[in-house]
Amino acid sequence: MAATREDEATGNGYSEGLREPEEQVLNQRKGMVQQKNGLEDDESEKKEVLSIEMIFKDKEVPTWRSQLTIRAFVVSFVLGILFSVIVMKLNLTSGIIPSLNVSAGLLGFFFIKVWTAFLDRSGLLKVPFTRQENTVIQTCVVATSGIAFSGGFGSYLFAMSETISKQATEANDSQNTKSLSLGWIIGFLFIVSFIGLFSVVPLRKIMIIDYKLIYPSGTATAHLINSFHTPQGAKLAKKQVKELGKFLSFSFLWGFFQWFFTAGDDCGFISFPSFGLKAYKNKFYFDFSATYVGVGMICPHIINISLLVGAILSWGLMWPLIETQEGHWYKSGLSSSNLHGIQGYRVFIAIAVILGDGLYNFIKVITKTSVELAKQLQNKDPATILPLADKGSPEAKAASFDDQRRTQLFLKDQIPSWLALGGYVIIAAIAAGTLPQIFSPLKWYHVLVIYIFAPVLAFCNAYGCGLTDWSLASTYGKLAIFAIGAWAGKDQGGVLAGLAACGVMMNIVSTASDLSQDFKTGYLTLASPRSMFVSQVIGTAMGCVISPCVFWLFYKAFDDIGTPDSEYSAPYALVYRNIAILGVEGFYSLPKNCLTICYILFAGAIIINALRDFGPKRWTKYIPLPMAMAIPFYLGPYFAIDMCVGSLILFIWEKMDKVKADAFGPAVASGLICGDGIWALPSSILALAGVKPPICMKFLSRATNVKVDKFLNP
Amino acid sequence: MAATREDEATGNGYSEGLREPEEQVLNQRKGMVQQKNGLEDDESEKKEVLSIEMIFKDKEVPTWRSQLTIRAFVVSFVLGILFSVIVMKLNLTSGIIPSLNVSAGLLGFFFIKVWTAFLDRSGLLKVPFTRQENTVIQTCVVATSGIAFSGGFGSYLFAMSETISKQATEANDSQNTKSLSLGWIIGFLFIVSFIGLFSVVPLRKIMIIDYKLIYPSGTATAHLINSFHTPQGAKLAKKQVKELGKFLSFSFLWGFFQWFFTAGDDCGFISFPSFGLKAYKNKFYFDFSATYVGVGMICPHIINISLLVGAILSWGLMWPLIETQEGHWYKSGLSSSNLHGIQGYRVFIAIAVILGDGLYNFIKVITKTSVELAKQLQNKDPATILPLADKGSPEAKAASFDDQRRTQLFLKDQIPSWLALGGYVIIAAIAAGTLPQIFSPLKWYHVLVIYIFAPVLAFCNAYGCGLTDWSLASTYGKLAIFAIGAWAGKDQGGVLAGLAACGVMMNIVSTASDLSQDFKTGYLTLASPRSMFVSQVIGTAMGCVISPCVFWLFYKAFDDIGTPDSEYSAPYALVYRNIAILGVEGFYSLPKNCLTICYILFAGAIIINALRDFGPKRWTKYIPLPMAMAIPFYLGPYFAIDMCVGSLILFIWEKMDKVKADAFGPAVASGLICGDGIWALPSSILALAGVKPPICMKFLSRATNVKVDKFLNP
Repeated sequence: MAATREDEATGNGYSEGLREPEEQVLNQRKGMVQQKNGLEDDESEKKEVLSIEMIFKDKEVPTWRSQLTIRAFVVSFVLGILFSVIVMKLNLTSGIIPSLNVSAGLLGFFFIKVWTAFLDRSGLLKVPFTRQENTVIQTCVVATSGIAFSGGFGSYLFAMSETISKQATEANDSQNTKSLSLGWIIGFLFIVSFIGLFSVVPLRKIMIIDYKLIYPSGTATAHLINSFHTPQGAKLAKKQVKELGKFLSFSFLWGFFQWFFTAGDDCGFISFPSFGLKAYKNKFYFDFSATYVGVGMICPHIINISLLVGAILSWGLMWPLIETQEGHWYKSGLSSSNLHGIQGYRVFIAIAVILGDGLYNFIKVITKTSVELAKQLQNKDPATILPLADKGSPEAKAASFDDQRRTQLFLKDQIPSWLALGGYVIIAAIAAGTLPQIFSPLKWYHVLVIYIFAPVLAFCNAYGCGLTDWSLASTYGKLAIFAIGAWAGKDQGGVLAGLAACGVMMNIVSTASDLSQDFKTGYLTLASPRSMFVSQVIGTAMGCVISPCVFWLFYKAFDDIGTPDSEYSAPYALVYRNIAILGVEGFYSLPKNCLTICYILFAGAIIINALRDFGPKRWTKYIPLPMAMAIPFYLGPYFAIDMCVGSLILFIWEKMDKVKADAFGPAVASGLICGDGIWALPSSILALAGVKPPICMKFLSRATNVKVDKFLNP
Repeated sequence: MAATREDEATGNGYSEGLREPEEQVLNQRKGMVQQKNGLEDDESEKKEVLSIEMIFKDKEVPTWRSQLTIRAFVVSFVLGILFSVIVMKLNLTSGIIPSLNVSAGLLGFFFIKVWTAFLDRSGLLKVPFTRQENTVIQTCVVATSGIAFSGGFGSYLFAMSETISKQATEANDSQNTKSLSLGWIIGFLFIVSFIGLFSVVPLRKIMIIDYKLIYPSGTATAHLINSFHTPQGAKLAKKQVKELGKFLSFSFLWGFFQWFFTAGDDCGFISFPSFGLKAYKNKFYFDFSATYVGVGMICPHIINISLLVGAILSWGLMWPLIETQEGHWYKSGLSSSNLHGIQGYRVFIAIAVILGDGLYNFIKVITKTSVELAKQLQNKDPATILPLADKGSPEAKAASFDDQRRTQLFLKDQIPSWLALGGYVIIAAIAAGTLPQIFSPLKWYHVLVIYIFAPVLAFCNAYGCGLTDWSLASTYGKLAIFAIGAWAGKDQGGVLAGLAACGVMMNIVSTASDLSQDFKTGYLTLASPRSMFVSQVIGTAMGCVISPCVFWLFYKAFDDIGTPDSEYSAPYALVYRNIAILGVEGFYSLPKNCLTICYILFAGAIIINALRDFGPKRWTKYIPLPMAMAIPFYLGPYFAIDMCVGSLILFIWEKMDKVKADAFGPAVASGLICGDGIWALPSSILALAGVKPPICMKFLSRATNVKVDKFLNP
């Protein structure tokens, strides 16, 4: 077993790259010894730098049952409704949904704190408010409001309706249309939403303990929650909290300030052509997003570099080259978001690389787990199969106190594998049986095939999200539209089947990444995985009722919902329907050479991974990660540039003052992420209330500017 | 005499406010003792914090004669031509001239350094390059290129020509026009340019030693020059230099970055409506100018507050109120830069307040000097009349080493008062005799009157510039146009007389502020006032020849010079001519109630000054300074906001870490000012080469944006 462990520690290129945070802790310790007089504070504080959990040492961690309180679910229910309304409104208007994780953590804290402070004063407080309970609330709210997004009310679900189908020119027959009604929507959601929970359970340990993935948002939320609950008297921790608070305020105010200048498209700092207008057209620009600068500070340098390399390869090289073939490889004059044109290359090539990388790692994990399991069975060792809990190994000794304690608690309350597997199989069976009843063109074997492949895709998404903070759920959903739509065929209601398949896929994939983020938060706040699982189940159940009701409210309240140019135009609904119409024509309707390139890069991703694993050790750590490289393929380089800026800031800070950078880096990064995250809430409320920003900060070329000036002052 | 000294130290409100830098040094010393372990450095460095001159202690200060080297004047000549070309081009194109002081200091250093390094290697270097020599070059170049501005080639002088006069509808007869020719321009400049030098000499001690005015640009240039010449081994000084270099680079790169977004009017960060579009229309915005943030960091807080109070009073209150009277007090529909309309109020009310304040202080200084002189004559004490050199007084003991040493050297090489007075009278006489020969409508008594009042105005301008870094030379020039133009009358060639008077006035007033800045630099670099005076005389003489020649080159090379819509439109020439045409109609052509308000605020300025001097000591330091308040009256609040931001940054820094803020504040501020200042050079060269910025960062209201979007994408 020791051999396997060693193999895992050195042979696995990813874990090497991602071990950095741990290395930092060690370096930090060294740094502290070398620079004894570096900080002005006393000896005791220096020890604190090493460990957050040392600060919380005296705080008892409640059992998983007592982490689940009634007050937590009452608050979750209220916040769940609030966030569902916000997400729904955004679904139906702009279609762009910000991440609300951080706001959920913050508001959860605020509500319970006010409540407990009130009870405390009146002497009625029996159970103190712990950070674990805070995490439970946050998890529950995210699960609830997540359904408002993955339920597809602004995308695939609404795309089935007559309102949308009559806007398309093809496939608007009754076979490809389904009238919306509250009953089947709730039923559908109950069938498809829970399976994600069971698929996440086995991923949990792999992603968080073995691969030590970052999950930037989850980490930032955990820092925030930890900071709220930091006990009195911890000097350095207080300083970190202060630093976090400072950058949180800065980032919040920055978000607020930016808002004023975003009246209209391509307005404001998010459209700042920092490298010129030509670079901006290829999405090379720094968009001043505090979130992604913070994410870049949390992610290891190699991830940020991989993103940038991927961005340059795709948007700097491949896409411009392919665009020179416009008219040859694909029809000229198509809009840049048409899947028949350049967008087709972007989406499918990105998916190919992600699938290649994901498949490689999926198979690797399966192989290793089986080998380990077989060995254990041979040894007749009934003990746990959790390597890091093996306290005798030299690695475990080197692991920091934080890691040990977190891992110990993370693995304490196991969710049995038979429960996860059994649950998955049972729900898949139910879905295969019932979904064809709801959508007649969708056959039971379609559902079965989706559920056979879904775990790989869920793995890919959870893994990619852990690396880069991006969830590509809708991309996988589009893949399902294509695959199932083409299979069912146009004449057998392929459009409807594709859209339904999209829903099935999106729910599982989106849940996988969301809940992995939550598990990371739970890991860092010592919340029990079992309490989190229960919280997620309850949250999902609430979401399955709340979201359709909220949607129904909007649907009945506004007559013009879903029609173009109305306030509630639900822009993505038509987009999804169009994708489905394209899908029924099959993969070969994709632009020329697209599939060939996909095959090549799919293989490329696998080869690069193998190189990272089996190449000479000295070089492998400089090889970029295909998964990270693929994400900007589709989204564009701008966020990679943000993240590299964050990386650069941290790099310079480390060069200048290693001790301080290590002590305050994560706090600063979390502050930046959380401030922007909290701003998402008021900005959503402003959008709900119809308050629009007053100014547009526009970027025009000199020639256009002359024209505009003449137009404005004739 | 001791009584007078004490009176001066406490009774003079200004000097109290402006003593802050000195107080800082004392506080700093206290801070250092209290926080012994605050900085990580050794004991020796802590002493260095106290004194720049301690670092230079071992460097001998050359005699004033040896500060004037031939190589310095060779370099000055070359740079003088370079800067004259740049200024001239800007005169004739945009009309906006940045301050080139800092670039002059930097390039002077660079040229001589390369030269001496070359000589040093070949073993031929006899005289080492000192910071005093560096200051001499900087002074000479500023004097030379200053003429290119104050010579009025883009304003009053060109306004006399036929090219401009035929564009105006009135007063374009031969009596009010004068053909340009190289001969009389050089003659004119020689007559009017030197008198400024003599008027500055007596101001020198008052402004720099007695009032301890800041002269932000001069101070920043001195920091830069000192930093270039810092001897090896001074640890803290090195850190300061590093800090200066860091912020200089930042500020330079920021200027460069901003440039890309300034294609067109109202484009770029300098037009950023930070407080909304409505506030922007009233010029309330933060314009991201590194220069003025740095200036705000150098200026005492009370100055910045005064500016802001003045800005709010004028642009927030008075002007909007007056604008409600549009149609009653002045004709409606006038452009906002028309002196018959709101601009008339702005300009003349600002001048009234500045004159009130200036007059008060001028009379105060005259009275005090006379009283002191009288006392000295009574005591038959033939010694120096320089109070701070009086080493026995308790004040002098408390004065820091820097102040003592600087004052000592500043007062060592006196320029005799008889020379200054004699020179002034002789030049005034020559001017009165010769100018009417050049401009027949200008009579000898006009010139005489100008030269009687000019010292007061020169005092005002040097004083205001010392407080806030703004030279309002052109404002005083406009005053002269009005006064003399009205006196001469339209039919007696009043327009030409007014423009000529403007030249006479602008030269003396502009020289007063420029050279006071230089004297401040000299004070802080221990350059001898006598060597600086000689350098200024030589520089001025060079300028009187170089500038007209450069102008003549442009004038002959480009046919369309001075015509609207051409590249060399010289926009301010027509503006000046129009002011002159307005002027001949007399002061009563000003809008209604303008003069009444002027009288009231003129008196107000005097009363506030009296309050500051004679009010209860506890309160006087919180009373704003009328001179500082008046400057934004005319220019708008934006730079006051920049400066308050600088003030706020310093304030917060001081609250957080007093020791570091005191040690590095001036370095950071100088870096910000110098970086932006150096950028002026490449940006001017880009403008000369016809390279225009590619992007316009535009700010549109939401409604306008919708229109523009429709216009661009119909």
